[in-house]
Amino acid sequence: MGPFSAEVYAERRRVAGEVMRERGIDLMFVPPSGDLEYLTGARRRFPTFGNISYTHGWVCGAFIRPGHEPLLVLPRMVAEFDMPQGVPGDVIVVNELDDGAAVFEKVVRGFGPVKRVAVEQRTWADAVLALAKVTEGAQLVSATSITNPMRRVKSAAEIELMQRACRVADHAMGVVTNDLADGAVERDLVEDLDSLLHGDGSRGPSFDSAVWGMGKTTKRDASDRESSSRLHRGTGVSFDFGAVIDGYCSDFGRTIALGEPDPEFIDVYNTVIAAQAAGIAAVRPGAMAKDVHNACRAVIVDAGYGDHFRHRTGHCIGLDVHEYPFISEEDETPLEPGMTFTIEPSIFWPGRVGVRIEDIVVVTDTAGVRLNEYSTQMVIVDAASSTFADGADGGDGCAHDNGCSHGTT
Amino acid sequence: MGPFSAEVYAERRRVAGEVMRERGIDLMFVPPSGDLEYLTGARRRFPTFGNISYTHGWVCGAFIRPGHEPLLVLPRMVAEFDMPQGVPGDVIVVNELDDGAAVFEKVVRGFGPVKRVAVEQRTWADAVLALAKVTEGAQLVSATSITNPMRRVKSAAEIELMQRACRVADHAMGVVTNDLADGAVERDLVEDLDSLLHGDGSRGPSFDSAVWGMGKTTKRDASDRESSSRLHRGTGVSFDFGAVIDGYCSDFGRTIALGEPDPEFIDVYNTVIAAQAAGIAAVRPGAMAKDVHNACRAVIVDAGYGDHFRHRTGHCIGLDVHEYPFISEEDETPLEPGMTFTIEPSIFWPGRVGVRIEDIVVVTDTAGVRLNEYSTQMVIVDAASSTFADGADGGDGCAHDNGCSHGTT
Repeated sequence: MGPFSAEVYAERRRVAGEVMRERGIDLMFVPPSGDLEYLTGARRRFPTFGNISYTHGWVCGAFIRPGHEPLLVLPRMVAEFDMPQGVPGDVIVVNELDDGAAVFEKVVRGFGPVKRVAVEQRTWADAVLALAKVTEGAQLVSATSITNPMRRVKSAAEIELMQRACRVADHAMGVVTNDLADGAVERDLVEDLDSLLHGDGSRGPSFDSAVWGMGKTTKRDASDRESSSRLHRGTGVSFDFGAVIDGYCSDFGRTIALGEPDPEFIDVYNTVIAAQAAGIAAVRPGAMAKDVHNACRAVIVDAGYGDHFRHRTGHCIGLDVHEYPFISEEDETPLEPGMTFTIEPSIFWPGRVGVRIEDIVVVTDTAGVRLNEYSTQMVIVDAASSTFADGADGGDGCAHDNGCSHGTT
Repeated sequence: MGPFSAEVYAERRRVAGEVMRERGIDLMFVPPSGDLEYLTGARRRFPTFGNISYTHGWVCGAFIRPGHEPLLVLPRMVAEFDMPQGVPGDVIVVNELDDGAAVFEKVVRGFGPVKRVAVEQRTWADAVLALAKVTEGAQLVSATSITNPMRRVKSAAEIELMQRACRVADHAMGVVTNDLADGAVERDLVEDLDSLLHGDGSRGPSFDSAVWGMGKTTKRDASDRESSSRLHRGTGVSFDFGAVIDGYCSDFGRTIALGEPDPEFIDVYNTVIAAQAAGIAAVRPGAMAKDVHNACRAVIVDAGYGDHFRHRTGHCIGLDVHEYPFISEEDETPLEPGMTFTIEPSIFWPGRVGVRIEDIVVVTDTAGVRLNEYSTQMVIVDAASSTFADGADGGDGCAHDNGCSHGTT
């Protein structure tokens, strides 16, 4: 079912059950989600733009109780079509002609009196309302406080899967660079990326892949993720995408100079690389998530681009692309060995310049180590000729002494 | 913002407000969703496999009250990056360093005492729990009972968008047929489809496109939507996909014979076509959704394939792919002019045969009319030569008198 043995999932449920006991939580409801994959190995279906739903769709999920096997309640159509790999534990199938709410109520009442119930973060509102009604008087709480502290610290086996997901992204970046040329259509490069990801074993893109060009010849900002604009020389072309390997996500970013880069692009590129390096250097067990953000951000502020670094530095990542804690100014979570998160500074200045560099870092016992292996050297395409830079020029301009290949620090 | 004028959205909110008043509902909370697009024109972002979330992500949504402009509460990252088209109404932005729960609470308390609160079906659990807490004593109900009766009856302008979404699917089917050949990879055809959809103006696939071959040479079932298997002669290759035009979804299906079809495939094909025709013939205002299902299903049961028609006949469709009512055995909703829904019978019999035909039908004042225009004639690829059938052979075998092109009824 999932990538790990049944014992691994049983052990995770045992630990979750202990936390539940400590907090007086009798019951946890987990619909198809990263939490469900983590606790049982049962797969999520890929989400869809226009929501997919079946009769009694809201009842779909697993009930987790300390000391018991999971009990899954599944609409018949989900059991028949959406979970071809099967599911763990006991299953109650709700048929179309059944009274879904009555089955749900009967299942919950079958657990006996409950005082506190945890619900997975994105449980449908209908299920939350039904749980509140059936367990009248029980306190409902978010399951994230149980599952996130477990999920955010990855085991060696999970880190290996994360590393594989990073390698798929690294490989796609290297290949797609070949398709970048003056006049290339942003959306075509997205399709190329998604195809490359799948060809390397990804279940699909971990989020909506994006390719966009920013520079002095366009007003384009990074926020339009569905564009079919053509890319032109004189822009920095940013790539933001990730793979899914056995449910584990990567999230990766680079910016490539299309055509001869101007001095400002080079300065910005070097600033973003330096900011990322400062962020990585700040990673150690016990440091707070916000410390990494502050270290990364300081480099960009000092370089005078603070107004154009418009987002957090990163986020933890695993079975979901965005997991807590966030590498963000408000997040005081202490870092722990085994955490995996992005460090992805950017300078997005519409009409001027746009650069984003993103890698996943894992916290070791002493430091932060990149899981991505792709170079951060500046790549220039379609200038005199496509070339990888191999030197450093101090970041203050184009030296023109190495065939328009510009180094970074 | 959305495809319609501000007046259209204001009128929808006025009608929703009237329903709310009738039912004593003071407040409705609507996160980014089909409901939000319907009521305000503000766009959803494409959903992602690994959930995307930002600091205070759960607060994101619009508060709708009778007689007032919508009030949107947006995490700063959403306002900055996810809604580049802007949003209607008043906006409160929640910054990273803000206390998201406190802002949410203050906003809700600002509305004064509330007795009943409606929440959109897929509102995050955290938001439902926060609403329950802040409005202590208020009754929380699903917003679907307000929005679905409005959304399920499409205006002429909405039907026009649905028709455009259907045409994009029709066109993609006609083109992708060229890529079907012995040895073609299922996943490659999915990529071809998604590229065709986008090329014709679709925001993306309306759900996870799927291509799969079933027949006597494979054990494959229709439930694996992520396969990279190769297709071989002697299988029926089914296509299931849809487009998104201005937020409105299509959902389309055909099965093509790859190589010389055997008599059983032909029989099954003709049975499925006849079942769909019977379903369409049962459509009229006042008929119940289940009547259409029963009429369609009866044809397949009578032909002896009842065990292999394993799902409902269809579902309403619009801003979501699956909307209520469902064309399903339990659904007694009376059909109304302007409803749009799929009629998609199938016979899925792993190791034997698999055929699905799916079109969207709109209810007129007197009948059901297809919005898809693509032929239901049997298409045979890679037999003697690729060819479209143009005759009818009664469905009981291959006559071999028209170049292996088999007709259907």
